[in-house]
Amino acid sequence: MAKNLGVTVLLDFYGEMLTEKQRSFLDYYYNDDLSLSEIAENEGITRQGVRDAIKRAEAQLFDMENKLGLVARFEEQKKGLDEIVDCANLIYEQNMRFGLSREINEASVRIRAIVSTLVEA
Amino acid sequence: MAKNLGVTVLLDFYGEMLTEKQRSFLDYYYNDDLSLSEIAENEGITRQGVRDAIKRAEAQLFDMENKLGLVARFEEQKKGLDEIVDCANLIYEQNMRFGLSREINEASVRIRAIVSTLVEA
Repeated sequence: MAKNLGVTVLLDFYGEMLTEKQRSFLDYYYNDDLSLSEIAENEGITRQGVRDAIKRAEAQLFDMENKLGLVARFEEQKKGLDEIVDCANLIYEQNMRFGLSREINEASVRIRAIVSTLVEA
Repeated sequence: MAKNLGVTVLLDFYGEMLTEKQRSFLDYYYNDDLSLSEIAENEGITRQGVRDAIKRAEAQLFDMENKLGLVARFEEQKKGLDEIVDCANLIYEQNMRFGLSREINEASVRIRAIVSTLVEA
């Protein structure tokens, strides 16, 4: 079974929508890098059972992304916010060199601060 | 049955996760403002059936917001982006009045343009 690395990201976004069992299977498999057999042994079920559960949970994650597009939207936003930071940096530097307006300085610093809080949220 | 106006917003965000039938019932009830009896008549089911279906769909929407918090996150972001626009406006005006840097002017305009695309997305 090929590991799909996108699953880790999807799990971050949609994990709460899965059952606790589904979440922990995906977590063991993708984040802790346990094998299907290791998970099966720990959980006292068959390897095939683990495999089916993981496949089903993955399908649910991909289905949610198809419907809600949270990851795609987040990446789009991240790009826009990065670009805003570039603009704020340019304003800051230009102002430091030529303008020396305290207001412009503070506003450009503030923009970068807001972007950090938005990216972390 | 009291109408919960938050449902319209939740429907915008999570509607795709409901069945087509659930979506149209909520749509009739909240957006088209049809009564339960009117929907029941149009759909050829009982008023109680419509009511139960709507209650269930609403519960699913609230459950998804509890788990994923998309609406709360969106509103938080909207606040941050509004504040970024305020900063960009201040930079633009200060620069127009005192600095007259073409680079600062362009960068502040660009920030506002990026924010518009992010708010629309």
